[in-house]
Amino acid sequence: MSIESKMITIAKSARTASRKMAACSSSQKNNTLLSIADNIEKNAVDIKAENQKDLAFGREKGLSDAMIDRLTIFDDTLQSMANGLREVAQLQDPVGTLSDTKLRPNGLQVSRMRIPLGVIGIIYESRPNVTIDAAGLCLKAGNAVILRGGSEAMYSNQALAVGIGQALIENDLPAGAVQVVPVRDREAVKHLLKQEESIDLIIPRGGEGLIRFVVDNSRIPVLKHYKGVCHVYVDEDADLKAAEAICFNSKVQRPGVCNAMETLLVHQASAEAFLPIMAKRFEAAGVRLKGCPETCRILPSIEPAGEEDWPAEYLDLVLAVRVVQHMDQAIAHIATYGSDHTEAIVTRNDSRANRFLKEVGSSVVLVNASTRFSDGGQLGLGAEIGISTSKLHAFGPMGVKELTTTKFIVQGNGQVRE
Amino acid sequence: MSIESKMITIAKSARTASRKMAACSSSQKNNTLLSIADNIEKNAVDIKAENQKDLAFGREKGLSDAMIDRLTIFDDTLQSMANGLREVAQLQDPVGTLSDTKLRPNGLQVSRMRIPLGVIGIIYESRPNVTIDAAGLCLKAGNAVILRGGSEAMYSNQALAVGIGQALIENDLPAGAVQVVPVRDREAVKHLLKQEESIDLIIPRGGEGLIRFVVDNSRIPVLKHYKGVCHVYVDEDADLKAAEAICFNSKVQRPGVCNAMETLLVHQASAEAFLPIMAKRFEAAGVRLKGCPETCRILPSIEPAGEEDWPAEYLDLVLAVRVVQHMDQAIAHIATYGSDHTEAIVTRNDSRANRFLKEVGSSVVLVNASTRFSDGGQLGLGAEIGISTSKLHAFGPMGVKELTTTKFIVQGNGQVRE
Repeated sequence: MSIESKMITIAKSARTASRKMAACSSSQKNNTLLSIADNIEKNAVDIKAENQKDLAFGREKGLSDAMIDRLTIFDDTLQSMANGLREVAQLQDPVGTLSDTKLRPNGLQVSRMRIPLGVIGIIYESRPNVTIDAAGLCLKAGNAVILRGGSEAMYSNQALAVGIGQALIENDLPAGAVQVVPVRDREAVKHLLKQEESIDLIIPRGGEGLIRFVVDNSRIPVLKHYKGVCHVYVDEDADLKAAEAICFNSKVQRPGVCNAMETLLVHQASAEAFLPIMAKRFEAAGVRLKGCPETCRILPSIEPAGEEDWPAEYLDLVLAVRVVQHMDQAIAHIATYGSDHTEAIVTRNDSRANRFLKEVGSSVVLVNASTRFSDGGQLGLGAEIGISTSKLHAFGPMGVKELTTTKFIVQGNGQVRE
Repeated sequence: MSIESKMITIAKSARTASRKMAACSSSQKNNTLLSIADNIEKNAVDIKAENQKDLAFGREKGLSDAMIDRLTIFDDTLQSMANGLREVAQLQDPVGTLSDTKLRPNGLQVSRMRIPLGVIGIIYESRPNVTIDAAGLCLKAGNAVILRGGSEAMYSNQALAVGIGQALIENDLPAGAVQVVPVRDREAVKHLLKQEESIDLIIPRGGEGLIRFVVDNSRIPVLKHYKGVCHVYVDEDADLKAAEAICFNSKVQRPGVCNAMETLLVHQASAEAFLPIMAKRFEAAGVRLKGCPETCRILPSIEPAGEEDWPAEYLDLVLAVRVVQHMDQAIAHIATYGSDHTEAIVTRNDSRANRFLKEVGSSVVLVNASTRFSDGGQLGLGAEIGISTSKLHAFGPMGVKELTTTKFIVQGNGQVRE
């Protein structure tokens, strides 16, 4: 069978399975999640053996240590996959809930019923845990899901798929409800992205290259963010102790992720007092600073920032710093160079805090808190399938509810339109 | 300036204007809508004179009488545009409202704030009233909008744009907030559809050809429906008098629109009693029936339906009729041939009604009411910008709220992530 025919078969069988998934009960879905968790534990030896094949292949291909680390399934990786599924089973099931019920003047009762999206395709890179996390969230929301992980994790993902398949059988759900694409060739992704009659949504997870490839080749709607160029703005009325803690945490706690700070904006009235202390702390942690002319005047030892630094996503211990004349300049800087992901203000002034919350157009806007809280778990969604920086359907971290939509249901007693 | 540069300029100026629109108050937006309404009335003579140019050009090009009718601006067309704007001004402003507020264990207060989408592009065909209706709804939701109507309505749309531009000036809003594209060439649309950095959403309104053109050429998310193949299912427990009224209304009241019935499904236990009476009423109204073999056995004078009739959107006084053995067969028929638009069941059996509401996957599902109620105004949205049959962002008729999204806002007092 050609790759194209294989992908068409997978997509169609997901579409058929999605109808059964939409009608199945919360307990059937939750029991399936618990079965997958148990099966991961039962199959641990096999999964780790298959993972070793990927690792050997990866070392041969010369993957970096960081890549090998991401690819490795440790005992606690398996445990956290299983625990994650058990937590998702505890979440509320959004499907079937009614909202916005209204009685129309002609007696029609109109409601919105929450329903699954249908079929979701997830395209991701090396981490095998995405296979389990994404399957769990999509199933919980009543969707069928097609998972296409990185070719370097193929054995690991197929080994994880075994436990998923067993769980579907044990709980009388169709095998098409979760499918892990067994094709290494990237052509497979291209063909999947053309199945717009069968697949409702694509979520890519990975680097900017993967995401651009998916967007450029998809006929199906894509929810994604390209990058996170997150800002912290330290206002003239900031508590500078709090600002120091928030900026340090936003930059240093985990610099390689999309909600880490990449540019620090400081009001000119706070700069002289704040920057020297902050710079000392950053330098002790190995953070390289790049500053605007005013920043370099205050901190003569740092290197100047160029125009290319303002839109940069370093994902590393590097930080661009700019002194602004007032908050409007900070907001304009964010609108020009930001990525609509996450921004924070540090201030004790409520009216400026509210204006910042309202006028900054990003998907997550924080007052007096670290940008690192921009995460589905931290914001209380229970778990996160990804982050969207496009405004359609969902904007920001997406949980189970964002994997559903609503339809209108209307109950009448014979009404016709005049 | 090339068409491409013109479109880039328009898109960028809309993006800039959208920031101002997002921050403006409800009363500023409502006053603008009222000013546009007043200006339409004031400019009536000019608008009708420009409309005459389009009509003369259209007659020369040999447009059909129906097309000419749609293109014509009568006095009451202008009045209903102005009244529509005044009604939209009365609607609640969704922007700025908070929902899902939660206090996290670490003291962070997380909410979702409703915000405009940003910049919306509307691509439509001959009816000039879309220019006003779409501008009104997009402005109400705090968006900037780019309107590109059919080339055959170019003079009329530009004349309507004059009153919009005056209203923006009168209310201190940027001219980029509503722009009517002054380019006849279809190339303009292609270039607009590539401005994904500036435009957040495209809504095409028109025939299937226009919509496919937009989808095939867009890098921007598109909300659309291709067609409406709507079904009424008359159950074994139907009140046959109600069924007759509902079916007649669904097919005959306005056959050329997307929420008219195209296929009638009848339970075998109701067919013998129902079909002869219903057929007589349809035939008297000039409806041509095409039936499955069992229908043709009961109604020997009608023509047989072919496989091509089941997915057909006739938009005319033609109806396909099929007798089914049970409700599951009706649901399966709808899943196979339907367009996810609108379906109705006629029954007195509550449990089957509930199962139909749950299991039929269309955007609007009705019990004991005409499919013609599938419309934003009729469902209580206040007004309608279009209908979506894809499940992302919005599914079904879309009103002002569907032209917005939410962002997360988080208020802390110095929290950092552990």
